[in-house]
Amino acid sequence: MVMNYLIGVLGGMGPAATADLMNKIIELTEVTGDQQHIPLLVSSMPDIPDRGAHLLNGGASPLPALMDRLQMLEKAGAVCVVMPCNTAHYWFPQLKAAASAEMLSIIEATVEAVREAGLSEVGLLATDATLATGLYQSALEKAGIDCVVPDAVTQRTTMAGIFALKAGDPTTARRYLEAPYRYLLREADAIILGCTELPLILAEEVRERPSFFFDSNKTLAQAVIRWYEGKTGKTLLKRPLADGDKTPS
Amino acid sequence: MVMNYLIGVLGGMGPAATADLMNKIIELTEVTGDQQHIPLLVSSMPDIPDRGAHLLNGGASPLPALMDRLQMLEKAGAVCVVMPCNTAHYWFPQLKAAASAEMLSIIEATVEAVREAGLSEVGLLATDATLATGLYQSALEKAGIDCVVPDAVTQRTTMAGIFALKAGDPTTARRYLEAPYRYLLREADAIILGCTELPLILAEEVRERPSFFFDSNKTLAQAVIRWYEGKTGKTLLKRPLADGDKTPS
Repeated sequence: MVMNYLIGVLGGMGPAATADLMNKIIELTEVTGDQQHIPLLVSSMPDIPDRGAHLLNGGASPLPALMDRLQMLEKAGAVCVVMPCNTAHYWFPQLKAAASAEMLSIIEATVEAVREAGLSEVGLLATDATLATGLYQSALEKAGIDCVVPDAVTQRTTMAGIFALKAGDPTTARRYLEAPYRYLLREADAIILGCTELPLILAEEVRERPSFFFDSNKTLAQAVIRWYEGKTGKTLLKRPLADGDKTPS
Repeated sequence: MVMNYLIGVLGGMGPAATADLMNKIIELTEVTGDQQHIPLLVSSMPDIPDRGAHLLNGGASPLPALMDRLQMLEKAGAVCVVMPCNTAHYWFPQLKAAASAEMLSIIEATVEAVREAGLSEVGLLATDATLATGLYQSALEKAGIDCVVPDAVTQRTTMAGIFALKAGDPTTARRYLEAPYRYLLREADAIILGCTELPLILAEEVRERPSFFFDSNKTLAQAVIRWYEGKTGKTLLKRPLADGDKTPS
């Protein structure tokens, strides 16, 4: 009796970003009641080894846990799976190759949104590991878009902020993000929030200047809704609320 | 490789309340990083027939869908299951009898919080069906606590507000809730928010007067964390942030 087109969310990296993706899917779906919402099965089992610690410092690989959760979601009926974690997309090709479900990439969805906005250059806030693996830079390069990243010192406070949010301290997280935010505000016309903790940390800034941000978790939510629309023939995606919101509806 | 003590959330009634429970569990858990969070598997498959429409107007029963989702969560490894929907607790006894997982009741958790606060009387905001089935009234009576509910006309705007939130319109929902909120503010020393959409609608009022509200979704989140603490021997539940917050930590 599993609903048709069940979407699996391979989350827990971190849990707050996982709940944020759920909220964004819900808020961006036009409904008149509960029953029309998109069916989700959300794994927020956070015992997945730290992605950055593995990629940068040789810690345990998260891949076995990611594969395990992918299979669990598929076994429970998910026919499409998304991951609200940018860094984890380093393993996206391997997961996609192993998956029987379709998989939607947060990186592709976000770069496509920047491309559609017609930008030739964009700033990038992300984890050290996302920057080091070039996940965004190579996708942006293919799309002919230049990428600006914070200098090394400023990047350090980005990481401190992301870890503060993961530790449940949004106030400290926001203080840490001030310098990288100002840096990119000066250097770029728009910023990719290329880590799913960042839209939670910079929620107020995003509300104030929606057109300045490409929120990767929001573009993933939009990709989920579009995928579901494509399968069901329904029209569900809300038009953007803010004028000048560059994230396409 | 499923995490020990996986908690299943039988949600989707509605989806926003399901995400809110996740957020409350995350916010009330004291951690230093992702990996310490409580493992959750969340079903937000909202094609469950309307609970009130069945109980009050003879619509399709939600029980088969509830049973199906319970079994799906158990099959995927959940050993404890909770439902962030008060009205659905009409079927709690049948679900619990069929479940191999433990189940925690939102009604019991909330009434226990009122009892621990030493109140002899409490107001109750809930759906028509939750009121009609006496879910809270009978549990409160057993605990020796009197229950005040809005008059019939005021109750109608409560329902209108709940359905507005389910349709994605929190502004209209809040306008509808003004009358029932004022009614109970006059008539009672504290209110049970006995429908999981209500803390979302009255979020600002709850922030302003935390001690006036027993948020059923928050007491369920606390019950989840305590259950997990009991199984693992860990200490995870955050102390309350607001002085005079009646919901016990």
